[in-house]
Amino acid sequence: MQDHDVVGIGNAIVDIIGRCDDAFLAAHGRVKGSMQLVDAPTVEQLYGAMGPGTEISGGSAANTIAGIASFGGRAGFIGKTATDQFGEVFRHDIRAIGVTFDTPPAGGGEPTGRCLILVTPDGQRTMNTFLGISPQLGSGEVDAALIRSARIVYLEGYLFDRPEAKAAFRQAADIAGKAGRQVALSLSDAFCVDRHRAEFQDLVRNSVDILFANESEVTSLYETTSFDEAARRAQADTRLAALTRSEKGSVILSGGKAIEIPAAPVAKVVDTTGAGDLYAAGFLFGIARGLALDTAGRLGSLAAAEIISHIGARPEVKLSDLARKSGLVD
Amino acid sequence: MQDHDVVGIGNAIVDIIGRCDDAFLAAHGRVKGSMQLVDAPTVEQLYGAMGPGTEISGGSAANTIAGIASFGGRAGFIGKTATDQFGEVFRHDIRAIGVTFDTPPAGGGEPTGRCLILVTPDGQRTMNTFLGISPQLGSGEVDAALIRSARIVYLEGYLFDRPEAKAAFRQAADIAGKAGRQVALSLSDAFCVDRHRAEFQDLVRNSVDILFANESEVTSLYETTSFDEAARRAQADTRLAALTRSEKGSVILSGGKAIEIPAAPVAKVVDTTGAGDLYAAGFLFGIARGLALDTAGRLGSLAAAEIISHIGARPEVKLSDLARKSGLVD
Repeated sequence: MQDHDVVGIGNAIVDIIGRCDDAFLAAHGRVKGSMQLVDAPTVEQLYGAMGPGTEISGGSAANTIAGIASFGGRAGFIGKTATDQFGEVFRHDIRAIGVTFDTPPAGGGEPTGRCLILVTPDGQRTMNTFLGISPQLGSGEVDAALIRSARIVYLEGYLFDRPEAKAAFRQAADIAGKAGRQVALSLSDAFCVDRHRAEFQDLVRNSVDILFANESEVTSLYETTSFDEAARRAQADTRLAALTRSEKGSVILSGGKAIEIPAAPVAKVVDTTGAGDLYAAGFLFGIARGLALDTAGRLGSLAAAEIISHIGARPEVKLSDLARKSGLVD
Repeated sequence: MQDHDVVGIGNAIVDIIGRCDDAFLAAHGRVKGSMQLVDAPTVEQLYGAMGPGTEISGGSAANTIAGIASFGGRAGFIGKTATDQFGEVFRHDIRAIGVTFDTPPAGGGEPTGRCLILVTPDGQRTMNTFLGISPQLGSGEVDAALIRSARIVYLEGYLFDRPEAKAAFRQAADIAGKAGRQVALSLSDAFCVDRHRAEFQDLVRNSVDILFANESEVTSLYETTSFDEAARRAQADTRLAALTRSEKGSVILSGGKAIEIPAAPVAKVVDTTGAGDLYAAGFLFGIARGLALDTAGRLGSLAAAEIISHIGARPEVKLSDLARKSGLVD
């Protein structure tokens, strides 16, 4: 197998993106800015109520992996789709951008996972995820050779929401650890952290080399209202952490140092979906290619700025071109 | 049944929109700017070769009908979907914008129609349509009560490409004619006109009240290279014709007069898909509401300008708001 910069494992999701106002969120009991898991009747009901949508491949770790490929990185993905049309869309899009993706689809059972993303006029996204088949990652699907082929294995916290997916997560982290590969984790969502705090704290202390979290996730992890306090504890627990703070940029913590990275400018924030995922893409691409931490952070800011300037969480332009134009890479 | 301004009949299609360069079109034998019908193996092969896509409901007449609803018009649609995920997307999106749509989906046979739309850097779109179930409009589906409820019945020329759909077209035109309703026709595509020229000429002369065509379609209809010559013949054959000329605007022909309508300004042409469909939406909304011909034409230009400023052929903002802001309606 060819070498990879990064291999990601996550829920394989197709996003259905529509616009709504704040009153719609309130009327349907949605918490603005969050990710809520919904069951089949709820996703039906909500879909029936929302306006017209645009379908674009998504999934948190999958977005990151697509971003790494867009930077010119060699990337692979492991995730479960069904043999339905959304599954075909997901498989096509991730392969079309050059990602190694060989997880076989499953037929006859649950459909491919989908996420109804409601974007309010301020660009904020509220996600309602019906996981479908996506957590059903059997042990046979965690391709050990693919994981060992990568410098970094990237895992999304969302996998903890279902036991089968959590087992796959642990299996992948174990294979990567034994092979001397780096393990990167995204905490995914503050409510997700709330659901799995003790296990995430243990993971961060004992299994994770690179941690990604935004402000609400890292403060939830350490049950504090102070970002500085949460950052101090993350610094003590991990070798490398990148904490994102929306328009305030990000802070990279490593070897007792804190490096502040500004956000990249955006003319108009259209849809914040995927901002964290694409920050991770730029950062991991930089780390896998041995670039300086602040360069890796700036690549993260650059990718996040591209993704929030349009609808959807997959890049619309080649991030490798943006990176070259910005002078961050040759 | 409630009254409708316009009821449309057409192929129910979900668009899969991706970007490519001119070399990709050449390598795959595509004629830039055209619509080509493709079979299942060809659509597979082309989809495998193209980059990541965005899925958005489409279909020529369906786009027009969605546009009329976006202007605040009462609109209905008749078109065939399958009981698959793309069918669900199509049905959801057209109903979500307020269109009456009750054609029952079909299960177990062909899939919902889809169109691979390749957008080149100049914003031009090249369409590759796999019709799937969409032409299988049985006589039971042409809802006579729905057609009689509308001031105008709008038919797309593309329906002529399959015998079952053509039968539905003729049935609908017949019901509308007998009920004293107006029949509007879009010639759809120059190659489509080429395939059905004699029948289209007969329709235009004998059954159609309102004709929509672009420059290449109307010159193909009359087998002339001169737009002026084609316009003269269209004027002789129909009561009302709107001929679109891209950035040169449009010409409305009625009662021996020709009214020139300028194109509405666009900051950047992103994707021309649906320009003609949305021009027809604005024009038909204006006609159905009894507005002056030049106002109807300007509403058409306005809707076309909105649609080419983003990816996809369904409006991203309420056209009723745009129309009010422009002062064309109160």
